[in-house]
Amino acid sequence: MDWVYVEDIAGHAGREVEVRGWVYHKRSSGKVRFLVVRDGTGLLQGTMYSADKDAPLFQTFDALTQESSVLVRGVVREEKRAPGGFELEIREIVPVQISRDYPITPKEHSTPFLMEHRHLWLRSEKQHAVLRVRAEVVKAIRDFFDGRGFRLMDTPILTPSACEGTTTLFETAYFDQKAYLSQSGQLYNEATAMAFGKVYCFGPTFRAERSKTRKHLIEFWMVEPEVAFATLEDITVLGEDLVLFIIDRVLTRRRADLDILERDVKPLERVAKPFPRLRYEEILPRLQEKGSTIKFGDDFGAPEEALLSEFYDVPVCISHFPAAVKAFYMQPAPDRPDLALGVDVIASESYGEIIGGGQRIHDLDLLEERIREHRLPREAYEWYLDLRKYGSVPHSGFGLGVERTVSWMCGIKHIRETIPFPRLLYRIYP
Amino acid sequence: MDWVYVEDIAGHAGREVEVRGWVYHKRSSGKVRFLVVRDGTGLLQGTMYSADKDAPLFQTFDALTQESSVLVRGVVREEKRAPGGFELEIREIVPVQISRDYPITPKEHSTPFLMEHRHLWLRSEKQHAVLRVRAEVVKAIRDFFDGRGFRLMDTPILTPSACEGTTTLFETAYFDQKAYLSQSGQLYNEATAMAFGKVYCFGPTFRAERSKTRKHLIEFWMVEPEVAFATLEDITVLGEDLVLFIIDRVLTRRRADLDILERDVKPLERVAKPFPRLRYEEILPRLQEKGSTIKFGDDFGAPEEALLSEFYDVPVCISHFPAAVKAFYMQPAPDRPDLALGVDVIASESYGEIIGGGQRIHDLDLLEERIREHRLPREAYEWYLDLRKYGSVPHSGFGLGVERTVSWMCGIKHIRETIPFPRLLYRIYP
Repeated sequence: MDWVYVEDIAGHAGREVEVRGWVYHKRSSGKVRFLVVRDGTGLLQGTMYSADKDAPLFQTFDALTQESSVLVRGVVREEKRAPGGFELEIREIVPVQISRDYPITPKEHSTPFLMEHRHLWLRSEKQHAVLRVRAEVVKAIRDFFDGRGFRLMDTPILTPSACEGTTTLFETAYFDQKAYLSQSGQLYNEATAMAFGKVYCFGPTFRAERSKTRKHLIEFWMVEPEVAFATLEDITVLGEDLVLFIIDRVLTRRRADLDILERDVKPLERVAKPFPRLRYEEILPRLQEKGSTIKFGDDFGAPEEALLSEFYDVPVCISHFPAAVKAFYMQPAPDRPDLALGVDVIASESYGEIIGGGQRIHDLDLLEERIREHRLPREAYEWYLDLRKYGSVPHSGFGLGVERTVSWMCGIKHIRETIPFPRLLYRIYP
Repeated sequence: MDWVYVEDIAGHAGREVEVRGWVYHKRSSGKVRFLVVRDGTGLLQGTMYSADKDAPLFQTFDALTQESSVLVRGVVREEKRAPGGFELEIREIVPVQISRDYPITPKEHSTPFLMEHRHLWLRSEKQHAVLRVRAEVVKAIRDFFDGRGFRLMDTPILTPSACEGTTTLFETAYFDQKAYLSQSGQLYNEATAMAFGKVYCFGPTFRAERSKTRKHLIEFWMVEPEVAFATLEDITVLGEDLVLFIIDRVLTRRRADLDILERDVKPLERVAKPFPRLRYEEILPRLQEKGSTIKFGDDFGAPEEALLSEFYDVPVCISHFPAAVKAFYMQPAPDRPDLALGVDVIASESYGEIIGGGQRIHDLDLLEERIREHRLPREAYEWYLDLRKYGSVPHSGFGLGVERTVSWMCGIKHIRETIPFPRLLYRIYP
């Protein structure tokens, strides 16, 4: 007899199959017993009929508890009333292990309790839906870049230089040296972009920040494209295209999951090109007018992102930030050297910054000056300076945070549910 | 005028385009000048004609050096004799930056020199080919699992428990606790497999081993599938299918790169299902007969892998290892509890172990016993034990190392060239 996954059940109508999974739900109604089994790919309702309430099959049924593991054998029948359109006429149930006192019950549980049981919480319908959306977002991102001829270039996690202060870096002993966990693959991307033209890296990044917000993780995944010869304008358009590609994929392929999450999809359907584009100096007075205490030179915080969501019901591109508060490698605006050619994309509905990027300095003298001004150890950047000595070209790139994007797609307010095992301040278990 | 990538040039025959890239090669022949430009996606030959050797275009040409960055404008012409079948009738060259004394010349360089200049070495034709194969292998792996309904579940890098001794682990301070960089996502995969049925994780892993061999990296990428209800046999077949899928993709899509690398493809074309399957106890006497000093309980080293490649010209599956030397979570063989239901796949041609995996213990009592025997801190494994309390099922999985696989595909003997920025013993720059 074939072992069949629930997602493939439609192809087996009329045939006897074996489904392997866990008890999700069961109920009795007169001479009928209903057993809903989950196998990780879907839910399948099985039915049993008997006039004898002590029939052996019913006795087995009676002993099953929530999350007990089972092999269920029976014939697949089309049944419009069943969830998924098919059900199983059960002929045999083989319990694999009877689960006792499964800790997550239909009642409400506290967040600390659920986080402590994250390894089991993952089995719940809502968590399932969020993580399926996550997998789809990741796949969409990779398909987007692969389809446009970008070459995947994995950048290292263990890096020697402490870019700008070590306070938010995880440090480890690397044999006789020190190493730091990467916060971005960008500097390495700049090298591979000069070799391959269009590249991206996509991996975990780390920030040892003692901040406890609903938008930050200690360990999170980021995709970072980098394009030789691209300007700020070019990568702003690239970022828009990426966001639209992700939204389209999620709306097309994961609509059922969004339904489970009760996500109102209208705010996503509404997103179109081009996103409103504003310079930092343009948006500042509007934010202040609405009561924000932001001053020239400040970054946007949650209150400013919330205000932006009042002004616009789509994502917004903010560019031309004060150079003094931005990273040392940012290209200054030609007409305003006090402004940096950087761009942030702020998601709608207060989901915060999902993209940060910009054009990088390609002039050797200027980059050397900035390294001195920022008091960075020059020897650590020798290789990075080489990129400006040997065929330097204007180039640009950005980073998009996966978890922020998933929380936006799913419409969930706390980022901790967008990754299987979140790393938060003081939370590293399980 | 359109900015066109070399890989797309065929679609622009007869049109005037701009190519943006770097000087790869140039030569003169009477009234003709040839300029080969690389833009990261390919090489394009450009030609210029003039009776006047001091023509302005020729003067610009004369000033160009290796790896100078340029914008080259001209008309695309079909030209069968040119590499790629097209060339550019150059009308204008705009130098972006003239490169002086590019350190990597056509002469031979030492490995330490090349590693120190890895950020530039990446531009060389051979390195280019290897890393294109790498990107293809990664994409093949993801397509394989996505296409079979496996759900991507990213597992954490920062983990709390030191599985089995901390000597090969990188340690870091995680706020008030200690954390270790992951060597495998497997334990977490076991939790997500119980939630999603079929899962995989795919990310960087870390081994702080003081070993200096041509098959080991300190930081490397690994894909790890895990399947609920799967047996050792099931995942051995899955591993075979994955290897065949990767080989087929590389042979189909990256043949030109294998040509650049002068890879003899016959050893790859020859690989078919099923791979020879041998128990550890079967192969041991044959290895000893050929002079190996291996004893029952030893793992295979490079000499044993070389001998295996003499016996077989295809990959081999070795299973049923001595349980005492394997990880605590390995399921014992039913008939021989001193043997573990583990499997290694050893690549042909002495490229070493590419897959390691097996069936995991699903019985709670046995797992608790093993945790005691291995003197592991039980509290760190509470969540892992929960998986055996709540709907435990037999399950299996494996890990496939990306870099080993890429070195095999490319036929290169040292693994350091299979990743953009290798992390080796005492090598963390650039």
